[in-house]
Amino acid sequence: MSGEEKGTYCTVSFSPDGVATDVVRGATVLEACRSAGIAIDAVCGGTGKCGRCKVRPEGSFDPGDTSTLTSEERRSGIVLACDATVTGDLEVEVLPRSRIRKHQILTRTPEAPVARLSPWLKKVLLELPRATLHDNTADFERIQRTLGDRDLKMPIVTLRNMPHVLRKGDWTVTATVADLEGRGEITRLEPGDQCGSLLGLAVDIGTTTVVGQLIDLLTGDVLASASEYNRQISKGEDVIARMMYGEEEGFEELTDLARETVNSVIERLLDDVSRGREEPLTTHDLAGASIAGNTIMTHFFVGLDTRFIRLEPYVPVAHHMPPRSGYDLKMDIHPSSEVLLFPSRAGYLGGDVVADVLASGMHRSNDVTMLIDVGTNGEIVLGCDEWLVSCACSAGPAFEGGEVSCGMRAMHGAIDRIRVNEDLTTSYHVIGDESPNGICGSGLIDLVAEMYEHGVIDRKARIQALPTDRVKRTDEGLEFVVEHKDRLGKGATADLVVTDADLQNILRTKAAIFGAATVLLKKMGKELDDLDSLVIAGGFGNHLDIDRAVSIGMFPDIPREKYRFIGNGALEGARLALLSSEMRNDLVEIFEEMTYIELSVDDDFYDEFSSSLFIPHTDLEKFPSFRERKLPEGTV
Amino acid sequence: MSGEEKGTYCTVSFSPDGVATDVVRGATVLEACRSAGIAIDAVCGGTGKCGRCKVRPEGSFDPGDTSTLTSEERRSGIVLACDATVTGDLEVEVLPRSRIRKHQILTRTPEAPVARLSPWLKKVLLELPRATLHDNTADFERIQRTLGDRDLKMPIVTLRNMPHVLRKGDWTVTATVADLEGRGEITRLEPGDQCGSLLGLAVDIGTTTVVGQLIDLLTGDVLASASEYNRQISKGEDVIARMMYGEEEGFEELTDLARETVNSVIERLLDDVSRGREEPLTTHDLAGASIAGNTIMTHFFVGLDTRFIRLEPYVPVAHHMPPRSGYDLKMDIHPSSEVLLFPSRAGYLGGDVVADVLASGMHRSNDVTMLIDVGTNGEIVLGCDEWLVSCACSAGPAFEGGEVSCGMRAMHGAIDRIRVNEDLTTSYHVIGDESPNGICGSGLIDLVAEMYEHGVIDRKARIQALPTDRVKRTDEGLEFVVEHKDRLGKGATADLVVTDADLQNILRTKAAIFGAATVLLKKMGKELDDLDSLVIAGGFGNHLDIDRAVSIGMFPDIPREKYRFIGNGALEGARLALLSSEMRNDLVEIFEEMTYIELSVDDDFYDEFSSSLFIPHTDLEKFPSFRERKLPEGTV
Repeated sequence: MSGEEKGTYCTVSFSPDGVATDVVRGATVLEACRSAGIAIDAVCGGTGKCGRCKVRPEGSFDPGDTSTLTSEERRSGIVLACDATVTGDLEVEVLPRSRIRKHQILTRTPEAPVARLSPWLKKVLLELPRATLHDNTADFERIQRTLGDRDLKMPIVTLRNMPHVLRKGDWTVTATVADLEGRGEITRLEPGDQCGSLLGLAVDIGTTTVVGQLIDLLTGDVLASASEYNRQISKGEDVIARMMYGEEEGFEELTDLARETVNSVIERLLDDVSRGREEPLTTHDLAGASIAGNTIMTHFFVGLDTRFIRLEPYVPVAHHMPPRSGYDLKMDIHPSSEVLLFPSRAGYLGGDVVADVLASGMHRSNDVTMLIDVGTNGEIVLGCDEWLVSCACSAGPAFEGGEVSCGMRAMHGAIDRIRVNEDLTTSYHVIGDESPNGICGSGLIDLVAEMYEHGVIDRKARIQALPTDRVKRTDEGLEFVVEHKDRLGKGATADLVVTDADLQNILRTKAAIFGAATVLLKKMGKELDDLDSLVIAGGFGNHLDIDRAVSIGMFPDIPREKYRFIGNGALEGARLALLSSEMRNDLVEIFEEMTYIELSVDDDFYDEFSSSLFIPHTDLEKFPSFRERKLPEGTV
Repeated sequence: MSGEEKGTYCTVSFSPDGVATDVVRGATVLEACRSAGIAIDAVCGGTGKCGRCKVRPEGSFDPGDTSTLTSEERRSGIVLACDATVTGDLEVEVLPRSRIRKHQILTRTPEAPVARLSPWLKKVLLELPRATLHDNTADFERIQRTLGDRDLKMPIVTLRNMPHVLRKGDWTVTATVADLEGRGEITRLEPGDQCGSLLGLAVDIGTTTVVGQLIDLLTGDVLASASEYNRQISKGEDVIARMMYGEEEGFEELTDLARETVNSVIERLLDDVSRGREEPLTTHDLAGASIAGNTIMTHFFVGLDTRFIRLEPYVPVAHHMPPRSGYDLKMDIHPSSEVLLFPSRAGYLGGDVVADVLASGMHRSNDVTMLIDVGTNGEIVLGCDEWLVSCACSAGPAFEGGEVSCGMRAMHGAIDRIRVNEDLTTSYHVIGDESPNGICGSGLIDLVAEMYEHGVIDRKARIQALPTDRVKRTDEGLEFVVEHKDRLGKGATADLVVTDADLQNILRTKAAIFGAATVLLKKMGKELDDLDSLVIAGGFGNHLDIDRAVSIGMFPDIPREKYRFIGNGALEGARLALLSSEMRNDLVEIFEEMTYIELSVDDDFYDEFSSSLFIPHTDLEKFPSFRERKLPEGTV
């Protein structure tokens, strides 16, 4: 680099992190953050839309467009990292809310037991007759003959090692046999008797987090669990932002990041289980894997273009991919191991939902069950052992921290439970017991229910101009103060408020979910009363106050004992499919039998959605327990 | 490199090539040859055993062990390149006979027609319904649905390109479908209608030469043929030398060299067919390949260890390998294309012989047929449509130019036909019509037959001390002068002679073949008269005078009209298996049904071999046509 060119570089340092990086003059502050390894919240992928990446720089910079900031924020020197550019050396304070922080990640295993431990991976002890001049068939054919399976396959990597393993084990070897889709394959050979240990990996590749379990395939036990943020987050927080990033430039990068995250989880699982062992486990000890993820994450992970999922008519490259090898997917497991990829049903109804269904057991029950998984999208499955219908609604990311100014994901600093007091002050619980930075999904549902109960909002979720300092008017309309600035987390520059616009987003989200549920029931000629069971899947459900979710008209008003939480159904489904050949077959059946209804072209859906844009609904008959309650004054 | 270290390097230049190379002081001249790219004949892999790598250095060198050279050779400054070491700068003359030269390579297609053109590769035009919101299943499932095959597979490479190809072709695409072992797989998708062209590759990977054909799978036509030396030759001419080289250090190198050779043949085939075309063919146009080779070449090509084939009890890694992709084998064809690898039956009975059987059609005929393929080893198959037995005999490389002082392969400069005149001078034909450098297999058979007929040798192939300048006595015994030095090729330093030792090697070779043939017949309770047909396969057969081969007792004395030549049966078999699913199934049947008899532990074989160590045989009843002829005087 010449002396002159060198001048185009600027040093950007970050507090309180104490790290610095050199970036080219004109780079955005967000780019500097990424370069320095500062995990910053940029839901929109850095396009200036979400307004989440607030930082306070000091030094030489161009603030860029700050029109989405409050005048108070502007006054205190806050800018958006994605729009502010570096014009010289700079010190940057990253506001706490802008950081990606530790989540509450579910690795809990629900109680539902495995039907029968029958993994499609097994170990077989082979005591082969020694090769002699009278019997000098090839090593591979000797193994086929001993196993009595002439159609047995062997990947080239295993084939290459085979002669040495056979002779090292003096003709006694342990074969790991994978039986996938009727095709037997020896994926690994070990010298001697190694039948006492057989390990597998179950993974849920989520948009936000990747969770893995290391599983003993001989006992079904979960030996270790680990989770980590999906490293793709730095390229856009939601799937749309990431798909756009991938289309523009970073497709391979996104695939690499997804794989890196999975491999990092694997490393932690192996470290965890190896602790205290005489011989630490190696990646080669992982004999197989089962992976559930939404359609987009699965595409990125395998390396398939997501472009046509994003664009209408939302077409994935493939739903049901044949098993791949660990080597194919660059996973840190045995290179020949089979990796079962959960099939998706649609672009926005992925393998994670198929896994939910598997984990719920609804496909094996006479009961008519509805399964709801609320994340950035809401996915709903209705059915029993004879039929299954499903749909996805773009519920919007309101409950995942998006599109709501005070929203955040269920991580440390998030209000997850809240009550509005008689004087309209609030009482709440914060994850991690710290000062609040925002409100996560379950908190938002609480908040709407409470605000409605206290007459702060009407049936259309419009804030009422009450004579209290908790309701304020701004240029954009009314807002409700959830907590004052001085009681918020360090670095807070404004009160924690929920605005009219926020509430409309939440209302649309809950209406989409309830509307979709109603459409599915209608398609099958069912009423709410016909539901024998309602299963809530996903991390969201675990923190949820069902009563309040029902009271705002988000979930059906059926007897509460019919509700069941299965937690991380994607991970649980992945585990089940790894442990049981029956479950693996079920998986294919679920995929093949589940009808998918595209709501975006469904006339019913728009009607049902519109009818649900009320608290709880235009049709109070649908909410009998709510009807009996005393409605607050001033409501329509 | 420091100045002093530099002094340890010496420059070796070669004449008449005009090339030079630097090697470390102490390197052998053979290493210098290899470094300079001089293709030198080192049958034994440079272990000093074959005495073929004669060179004449001038300058600073240590001649090494010259005890195997004649005194005349020693006097003229000749040394063995593998044993002579470089001690300073050097000029080296490589003697013409020591060079690897242009072979006569068979690419002729025998007349036997394909049973029915039914390739396991086909192209299918797919006119897919356009994806809409009402029908937005994934691209892959759309193709499965259109083809009505839900079990259809697709390699990951094809899957990745698929969405773009579908849209480029506006939902009309051409799928290349491979049907291998009951599993349908789309290996390639092209936009639009490309059904008019479908090409495949048939390859025979021989120890000496690699021969390929580019085949039109729609018509069965051979569009181009090309051949090239197996580049492994520089690491040892025969399989034993190469296996040893591989075990010591150069295993991956041998795999790379085999693949390089195949890829070079492919390049030439594509160039050949592309000439004059508007759009030249690319490697991606090769949709599949069929490869026949002996067990060792196949192992090297796939990358499997050959160590245990070389050592007793001669065990390959695998006989029947599942098809691999072009990508797996690093072949310059479509990466997803299926490559059919011919199964071997034993370490020394390879896919080339299975291909011979396929090409001969003997497995489909009522006739009892014997197939003989003579190369470095002799392989013999006996059978009909109901049974097949086979064996391999280490015939020795006498007919391939090894273990015979005047022997060479059937390349330019080799005597391939010879007559001994009444005055014991000789008349002969030289391949390429040049001065002779040696005698190839067919020439040696002629020579032995003629020498016997003229009383130069007795029934035990011992040279008679006749009063003629053509018979000379040396320290090692008697030798017969085939041609005087002055009539030989440029650079000849001695007469072209055949020695007693040479003749004993030839005798053992012919005895091994006839003995093995007799054992197979005996095992099946058959007599020579029961043979309906005798098929000679391999390059050797094409130049052969059957009458003479019978007269020395190498081939059975049955009516000559029962003899049939199929030339390069390995290549022909590879072609047939590519063009016909039936033939591909036959291949597996031949592999599974053919019994292999290990002669090295067969008591009968030693007896039969010993009885055959006479001209033509101890039992003249076996050679009726010979018995009727006038025997030369002085014979036993």
